[in-house]
Amino acid sequence: MTASVFDHPYLSGLLGDEEISAFFSAEADIRAMLTFETTLAQAEAEHGIVSKQSAARIAGTCATFQPDVLALRHAVATDGVVIPELIRQLRKAVGGDAAEKVHFGATSQDVIDTSLMLRLKAASAVLSDRLSQLLDMFGKLDTDYGSNHLMAHTRMQAAIPITVADRLAAWSRPLADYRQRLNATAFPLQFGGAAGTLDKLGDKADAVRAALAGNLELSNTPQWQSQRAIIADLAHLLSLISGSLGKFGQDIALLAQGGDEIALSCGGGSSAMPHKQNPVAAETLVSLARFNAVQLSAIHQSMVHEQERSGAAWTLEWMILPQMVIACGASTRLAQTLATQIERLGR
Amino acid sequence: MTASVFDHPYLSGLLGDEEISAFFSAEADIRAMLTFETTLAQAEAEHGIVSKQSAARIAGTCATFQPDVLALRHAVATDGVVIPELIRQLRKAVGGDAAEKVHFGATSQDVIDTSLMLRLKAASAVLSDRLSQLLDMFGKLDTDYGSNHLMAHTRMQAAIPITVADRLAAWSRPLADYRQRLNATAFPLQFGGAAGTLDKLGDKADAVRAALAGNLELSNTPQWQSQRAIIADLAHLLSLISGSLGKFGQDIALLAQGGDEIALSCGGGSSAMPHKQNPVAAETLVSLARFNAVQLSAIHQSMVHEQERSGAAWTLEWMILPQMVIACGASTRLAQTLATQIERLGR
Amino acid sequence: MTASVFDHPYLSGLLGDEEISAFFSAEADIRAMLTFETTLAQAEAEHGIVSKQSAARIAGTCATFQPDVLALRHAVATDGVVIPELIRQLRKAVGGDAAEKVHFGATSQDVIDTSLMLRLKAASAVLSDRLSQLLDMFGKLDTDYGSNHLMAHTRMQAAIPITVADRLAAWSRPLADYRQRLNATAFPLQFGGAAGTLDKLGDKADAVRAALAGNLELSNTPQWQSQRAIIADLAHLLSLISGSLGKFGQDIALLAQGGDEIALSCGGGSSAMPHKQNPVAAETLVSLARFNAVQLSAIHQSMVHEQERSGAAWTLEWMILPQMVIACGASTRLAQTLATQIERLGR
Amino acid sequence: MTASVFDHPYLSGLLGDEEISAFFSAEADIRAMLTFETTLAQAEAEHGIVSKQSAARIAGTCATFQPDVLALRHAVATDGVVIPELIRQLRKAVGGDAAEKVHFGATSQDVIDTSLMLRLKAASAVLSDRLSQLLDMFGKLDTDYGSNHLMAHTRMQAAIPITVADRLAAWSRPLADYRQRLNATAFPLQFGGAAGTLDKLGDKADAVRAALAGNLELSNTPQWQSQRAIIADLAHLLSLISGSLGKFGQDIALLAQGGDEIALSCGGGSSAMPHKQNPVAAETLVSLARFNAVQLSAIHQSMVHEQERSGAAWTLEWMILPQMVIACGASTRLAQTLATQIERLGR
Repeated sequence: MTASVFDHPYLSGLLGDEEISAFFSAEADIRAMLTFETTLAQAEAEHGIVSKQSAARIAGTCATFQPDVLALRHAVATDGVVIPELIRQLRKAVGGDAAEKVHFGATSQDVIDTSLMLRLKAASAVLSDRLSQLLDMFGKLDTDYGSNHLMAHTRMQAAIPITVADRLAAWSRPLADYRQRLNATAFPLQFGGAAGTLDKLGDKADAVRAALAGNLELSNTPQWQSQRAIIADLAHLLSLISGSLGKFGQDIALLAQGGDEIALSCGGGSSAMPHKQNPVAAETLVSLARFNAVQLSAIHQSMVHEQERSGAAWTLEWMILPQMVIACGASTRLAQTLATQIERLGR
Repeated sequence: MTASVFDHPYLSGLLGDEEISAFFSAEADIRAMLTFETTLAQAEAEHGIVSKQSAARIAGTCATFQPDVLALRHAVATDGVVIPELIRQLRKAVGGDAAEKVHFGATSQDVIDTSLMLRLKAASAVLSDRLSQLLDMFGKLDTDYGSNHLMAHTRMQAAIPITVADRLAAWSRPLADYRQRLNATAFPLQFGGAAGTLDKLGDKADAVRAALAGNLELSNTPQWQSQRAIIADLAHLLSLISGSLGKFGQDIALLAQGGDEIALSCGGGSSAMPHKQNPVAAETLVSLARFNAVQLSAIHQSMVHEQERSGAAWTLEWMILPQMVIACGASTRLAQTLATQIERLGR
Repeated sequence: MTASVFDHPYLSGLLGDEEISAFFSAEADIRAMLTFETTLAQAEAEHGIVSKQSAARIAGTCATFQPDVLALRHAVATDGVVIPELIRQLRKAVGGDAAEKVHFGATSQDVIDTSLMLRLKAASAVLSDRLSQLLDMFGKLDTDYGSNHLMAHTRMQAAIPITVADRLAAWSRPLADYRQRLNATAFPLQFGGAAGTLDKLGDKADAVRAALAGNLELSNTPQWQSQRAIIADLAHLLSLISGSLGKFGQDIALLAQGGDEIALSCGGGSSAMPHKQNPVAAETLVSLARFNAVQLSAIHQSMVHEQERSGAAWTLEWMILPQMVIACGASTRLAQTLATQIERLGR
Repeated sequence: MTASVFDHPYLSGLLGDEEISAFFSAEADIRAMLTFETTLAQAEAEHGIVSKQSAARIAGTCATFQPDVLALRHAVATDGVVIPELIRQLRKAVGGDAAEKVHFGATSQDVIDTSLMLRLKAASAVLSDRLSQLLDMFGKLDTDYGSNHLMAHTRMQAAIPITVADRLAAWSRPLADYRQRLNATAFPLQFGGAAGTLDKLGDKADAVRAALAGNLELSNTPQWQSQRAIIADLAHLLSLISGSLGKFGQDIALLAQGGDEIALSCGGGSSAMPHKQNPVAAETLVSLARFNAVQLSAIHQSMVHEQERSGAAWTLEWMILPQMVIACGASTRLAQTLATQIERLGR
């Protein structure tokens, strides 16, 4: 099925991003959730909450465990989350005394949010690298054409002459800032137990959380089960990136319409007008920017996250965030494509 | 890959809708696009623009044609649309003189928008049926519990007693209206050629369009390539439906929290608290309502569709509309689930 | 104070609409609310619920009643709605036995929603007239320049030649449709009493509602206190109008950037570049379109209107809808301005 | 006129914020714009671009200058910005040789964006103070009721007991973070001249910009005329604040519906049901959160800010940002009100 252009058999050729999408596959999620369960058992073993044998048994099972995905699908229809059935299957696979120690003290949200953070951290590193590459490309354009003249436009009218370097600076500066922010982002562990109080861990709660965070290489912060600014901050940054790249795309599309201040190698064909050279990547950057600008609103609606855990608000995040990351990924990918298509800027 | 919950191997168990999603598969799209090409050739044959032999040859080829989807994916990355490559492949398969008559006088948008309309028409019929079923379920609840007392709540405070029938009316009336609107919706053919003027068809343009519309059982209207109210109207209706069902879900969740005015059979399990009975379907209806309420904004952004065809605005629609239809579908599905879980209403 | 550009001492010169704004003044709201109370008393007198003398006394008082607005402001801070204090003041002014008959059987939402409908009906008539005028202007442009050549643009690239008439049709057709929809819109009475059941009117409820609707020249429908599609439908139409006018503005801005296919009289000055002629009205139409496209999302969020009356969802409508109407008004105003600035189209 | 609830004669009693609104009055804007012109002339005098006499003359005039606001309103209709006419009036008032030195090297956007930054900086300080006060109030509640029991709710169902302190932590922690962010926010000068290159200032451009920033107590950064992350970052933070306060409001409303875990002093009256105690402030916090969550989308749409200055994107910011700040202000105000209405939490 192909509800989303990002997964679509052919539209993903334009709008998808295989490298980023991979972080949001069911398989990647399951793998990260099992990593959580393994690391939790190990952290609890360090602090004497489960035996070292149990932790080893859990880790060994998780390393190769392949859940029955159809059963997960069936269960999530009733439970609203995948964890109860995943844990049931996992406990069965673990067996023996260790079985009941699987997931000890944790709740669904701990596993699902932490899995998300592990994958967002990895995806952010990719995005950061791509911004670096793009900045290099803009640097190259600056070297080649920076001193060329360009007619500045304000309010869509010719204003005064500037240089290509001036325009490139307006494209580059925000990206350098976003790269820095991506690199500085803390991706926190989620670990609060049933209602955020780690009630089953007693006085060892803080120590287990610290060990868990350390071993997962996530930041150690108090649970944020109903405090979703962490999600909103990242969504905001993703939309800033696609927004600034949308400005780049819009600028190129306007240059390409004008004609003589840019030479663009590429361009898409038309079924009715074979002579055309459409600035497809440029336009698509605008689409992706507007897409993320809209999606961000849903993430902020989810800030009204009632009580200790809101099924309604949390589920809404699941519907939105992965596509925002992939849209941002596609923006960085297409911006690179577009940058390489520029054969001349200015005059 | 699984960017979208609607396609996700296990989350689709909660949020997906297989019946509605099927209309948005690549395969369904290709099939509908080939139907367009077949019917176009036939309509043009009726009016002497292509030979009857060519039309027959085209129709015969389309009936069984399986495009090279990887090549489509590759081409859409450059062209921004699938049609140039699809037509290239199709012409090769048709061969001979008929090849150049494939897609004669049409443009990418004609095929893609018309394919969408064919599938939206079918999907709307499913949604309408489901609203009918849901109205029957509410009717049954009215028969069983309509005269029971319910405490009205205004501003989340107990107000005065009403009957269950009163509350059921507030849930049902909008749905009856939406069903009627779905049934009354005209799904128009898109047919304008390269720039909306059907320039290649001369004085036969209107006749060909009428024949094409008639044979596709779509309404015959002038091209609407840059006039997107048709898309926005449907998106609005989809969001009204999920919005009113979101109200139903929110009402049930509030009843279930209060406790003694509803008996609910279902409810999802918790990994940390096995005793709980979560009103998962009710909460998810709220998520779906808020999702569509956000997505609608993107469709309205696409109303600023510059010139004769905007790649940016049109592509944005592709990113949004299929998921809105599926979200609406999931709402109707979950509302039925929830309605059947109600074992008693009021007292 | 000037939170909103629509009321702003100088920005309203660009973005405001005095004629439409007048419907959303506190004074206009109070006047319409008093009309509701007068007409309610009269309808109840017709059906023997209040005495004719009381009704006359209420009507007489309402005709000239000037509430203490500061006291209203103070009370709304506590009550969340203006009605309890307005009614308290009104009852005091009415005095005697009639006082307790003021507002009999009604609730805050009846008065506030009905006042809104009365004013939306009037505002819609203005919008419809303006669309007519705009269609006439486009007709005039068609007469003068319709046969001129214009280069069609698809994906922001020159496509094939069309005529100015073709472009004008793309601008006009949606407006003609919207005008028709405005004219066909039913503006319903809101009348349900405390919890929607008109509990205090017994078997005369339907008759009173019919009389009230008839005398207010609103459509007579069952109460829709928690069923907000009526609001959402209008908001959608407003955004369609500003959206299609945003397309018109974007098209003109692109023509003006290109240069030789349009002569535009107007244009704004620049503080730094006195030579410039900025297509200010064209750009502002785009701003207004994107504004309404965003606001619509809030109205659809309000569809999740819990229980019999949601303070949260209803209040959100108040924050959004008046500005949507005024933004739509400003769009129609600016579109007329822009149409008159066109001194030549095409070549 | 009263397009906006924030300015409305009586609705502002519920939704307005006089202290914050004052920063967005036309008068405050004009005063800040004149401060920019004064400080610019002084900075240019420091670097020998204008004479000290001219700078003194400009400063003297600006100190008491009262523009003809009706003329501003008239001009903004044509120019799209207020500056050309304001400068024209100001130059006339300054007179002599100094007149032509007014606004030397600057452009409209420099003045308008800088005026905004000056006022946002002041407004942010108010918001930060209010968050401090609110944190104190939550601290007091923690002292008084922190050890009381509260039933945790997940997915709107009773989960396990927690303490009031646990819930208070979920309300407080995000606010402490937001306060810190407000305090750490850099509010930058905007200064780029006609097309961002400070073309008229030659090699003194950087020095003038540094002096101007220093004297205005704004951060000195390169112009950001088409790079709008600065605006988006602040809008995001405003929506985070109202979002987390919306969660607080929603939690209180749900507690108030449940009944025995909270005692709330306040509550609004009803025109139909005098016995009711509506949690008006709690509900309104939800409305304000959803309002800002929607508005943020428009700010992010404005990131697609084409070329050197986009009239369309920039104007859209004006329509959105002031109301977001005031909505955030109203949230902090109402949250304090609500916190003081809590007479008991938990049991």
